[in-house]
Amino acid sequence: MTHQDTIVALATASGSGAIAIVRLSGDEAISKADACFRSVKGGKNLKDQATHTIHLGHIVADDRVYDEVLVSVFKNPNSYTGEDVVEVSCHGSQYIQQEIIQLFLRQGCRMANPGEFTLRAFLNGKLDLSQAEAVADLIASDNEASHQVAMQQMRGGFSSEIAKLREELLNFASLIELELDFAEEDVEFADRTQFKELIERITFVLKRLMDSFAVGNVIKNGIPVAIVGEPNVGKSTLLNALLNEERAIVSEIAGTTRDTIEDEISIGGIGFRFIDTAGIRDTKDVVESIGIKKTFEKIEQAQVVVYLFDSAKALSELKVVQVEIEKIKNKYPQKPLLIIANKIDQLTDEQLALLQSQIKNVKLLSAKTGFGVEQLTNSLLDLINTGALRNNETIITNSRHYNALLKAFEEVQKVKMGLDADLSGDLLAIDIRQALYHFGEITGEITNDDLLGNIFANFCIGK
Amino acid sequence: MTHQDTIVALATASGSGAIAIVRLSGDEAISKADACFRSVKGGKNLKDQATHTIHLGHIVADDRVYDEVLVSVFKNPNSYTGEDVVEVSCHGSQYIQQEIIQLFLRQGCRMANPGEFTLRAFLNGKLDLSQAEAVADLIASDNEASHQVAMQQMRGGFSSEIAKLREELLNFASLIELELDFAEEDVEFADRTQFKELIERITFVLKRLMDSFAVGNVIKNGIPVAIVGEPNVGKSTLLNALLNEERAIVSEIAGTTRDTIEDEISIGGIGFRFIDTAGIRDTKDVVESIGIKKTFEKIEQAQVVVYLFDSAKALSELKVVQVEIEKIKNKYPQKPLLIIANKIDQLTDEQLALLQSQIKNVKLLSAKTGFGVEQLTNSLLDLINTGALRNNETIITNSRHYNALLKAFEEVQKVKMGLDADLSGDLLAIDIRQALYHFGEITGEITNDDLLGNIFANFCIGK
Repeated sequence: MTHQDTIVALATASGSGAIAIVRLSGDEAISKADACFRSVKGGKNLKDQATHTIHLGHIVADDRVYDEVLVSVFKNPNSYTGEDVVEVSCHGSQYIQQEIIQLFLRQGCRMANPGEFTLRAFLNGKLDLSQAEAVADLIASDNEASHQVAMQQMRGGFSSEIAKLREELLNFASLIELELDFAEEDVEFADRTQFKELIERITFVLKRLMDSFAVGNVIKNGIPVAIVGEPNVGKSTLLNALLNEERAIVSEIAGTTRDTIEDEISIGGIGFRFIDTAGIRDTKDVVESIGIKKTFEKIEQAQVVVYLFDSAKALSELKVVQVEIEKIKNKYPQKPLLIIANKIDQLTDEQLALLQSQIKNVKLLSAKTGFGVEQLTNSLLDLINTGALRNNETIITNSRHYNALLKAFEEVQKVKMGLDADLSGDLLAIDIRQALYHFGEITGEITNDDLLGNIFANFCIGK
Repeated sequence: MTHQDTIVALATASGSGAIAIVRLSGDEAISKADACFRSVKGGKNLKDQATHTIHLGHIVADDRVYDEVLVSVFKNPNSYTGEDVVEVSCHGSQYIQQEIIQLFLRQGCRMANPGEFTLRAFLNGKLDLSQAEAVADLIASDNEASHQVAMQQMRGGFSSEIAKLREELLNFASLIELELDFAEEDVEFADRTQFKELIERITFVLKRLMDSFAVGNVIKNGIPVAIVGEPNVGKSTLLNALLNEERAIVSEIAGTTRDTIEDEISIGGIGFRFIDTAGIRDTKDVVESIGIKKTFEKIEQAQVVVYLFDSAKALSELKVVQVEIEKIKNKYPQKPLLIIANKIDQLTDEQLALLQSQIKNVKLLSAKTGFGVEQLTNSLLDLINTGALRNNETIITNSRHYNALLKAFEEVQKVKMGLDADLSGDLLAIDIRQALYHFGEITGEITNDDLLGNIFANFCIGK
């Protein structure tokens, strides 16, 4: 594949900032930059500079000075893409960003497609496919867990585990294929007992990896939590209280997550998406009935249900609360349910005792005073099996990887059955090759243009 | 002033991008970075590296790998701020940006105040004050004209013009002050005729600069244009047609100005802000009367008024159109008024002739077919005296500079009157010193903390 034309894109976030970076990659990246760069030191050409050096100067074309810039030079193969790369660090006005990109387009560069820099890095062997995918995950990561998993994947943790299995399997496959060459002599290079052991081991690892996808999916996409509760039972106060637990950590940079406070909160490094619902009280009112139907739809989407009620108000209608709780339990016996009595600061000790005796497993909370918040965050985290994450085990988060593992698993099971049935080497070899194929799909040893197109289309432009 | 603690901030636009840059500046910038940077080549310390070099590695602290990064090292005085500067180019997730900034805060860096990097550049003599202000203007520039003016100012065009006047005045001032030392001998070192000539010249230049502020203000803030017109006369189509004229130029990068299409359009490199109004027909309806009042308020704010009407509809109510036009003219005799008949593609030649005879100075337009759009853009540009811009003359855009020039001008006038009245040298010297003071305010030779605080508070954090 020759992907050597020179591409250009804005590499930093769109919008206005102090500085912005326009990135070029390709055979002519340096000469295209030289064509419109005037070093302040005079007479210096970027092409004569060492790799990984930075040069102050101006972007100039047709006697017009576009900007004062710093230009970084990376020479192949020592760059992100493995090609010659130039990064122009300019003033961060959108106008300037655009003008400089357009200047390079006029110089004959081409606008980069989404993910094309990373695609080139993959094609030039700088990253394998799962590492390339981790780059996109890394950029999208918005909490500690998703960041940690993406970092591990980008640094090759997952690939190396797959590569190790693949190598061992490949080893056996070649022994079996060797047997085929000596078919008439009835030799057995591949020890069948050892081979069975290997297949057991691969099965075990594949199962573990596939199981980790449930956690991985939660880590990547956050855990949807439906909060069932009437207005004014204290949902916002609760969300703020949960947030404040974390807030101490992030307080030094204000406003970064402000927009989404109401919806998504990171607890213990895991993202929780809170879905607000109306209550589910029995009613004959048509409009309210629609509301109840919607509440159930939202519970359907959630992985955890939090039933929140105002404890002071509830004392006079304990029956109603009990009925609602039973209704949720009956309808969703599988979904973890947290029952939370808020505003307990307004109750006497006797009232508290009554509440606890009447409502099983109720958790006491005063979002206002902060009482019970820590217990609640612990309960939420307990619901998620984050053991794997804490033990630094490999976790898969990508459904493409999950599907490839599943297919590899199926082929490995066929191999296992074949071994048990004493199938001949040539038949075993077919299934082994299929399993190897699916392993190869993960790291990118096996690819096709459609697959690459799908993967990189989800990247942002500039990466 | 010792401003040497190490500051940190995100230098690129906030939000998620392929990469982001976290910038450190100060005495300990390099050692703070070294404390959490592990080069992939191993064993390399950033402090031992040459200035303007880039290093691949990981940000690591407490056994946790934060990100794979490129670190750029700039050693004082060869950096933007004139101090040691480190730029960490990390993956562009907001989470990673934040984590890395917080890590540096824990290392004892301090979050930078708005504009603090540029303030340090000024304090360290890398930029004068008007150049520093131009940095903020440059980042805010969103069209060719404002960009060009800010670039010129940042590159010192304006400062050097002021500095030249200041030097000449200073020269005379010292001669006059020398006379004071020899007061009893009645000598005249400063030739009064030459001095008068200088004062004339300074007056001329100051006037030109002050006059340029009207243009400069327009360039910096855009020209507010009120479009008076009933619904459905074709305002949106007109704005789109105006935009399309320019669109050819910017088509290669889609979507960059899409959000604000309705409001702000760059024509010939000048920003025009279109303010939509209701019509101003006579009415007895109370609600509509309020609308008319608002229309007049909007015209008040505008610098140009465009009266747009549907020519086909207008033929049956020419009187109404004439009355409305007269009303605007009478109320705002000073404001340029463009009268535009839209949808002329629907008229016969006879109807066109009638329209032109009945409505003076009407411009014909078919926003749909594009007829008349170019003439309209030319008319809009003609209204603005952009001669100075085209002739590459110095233009001032900053009201602080305008006020300082105005004060300098007043002092120079006093000097002039003093010369005409044959005032003694010591009295002249007082006024000259005042004029010099105001010149110095512009370039920052004269500053105080309040002034600096005001200027840099308007910067973004990270610059």
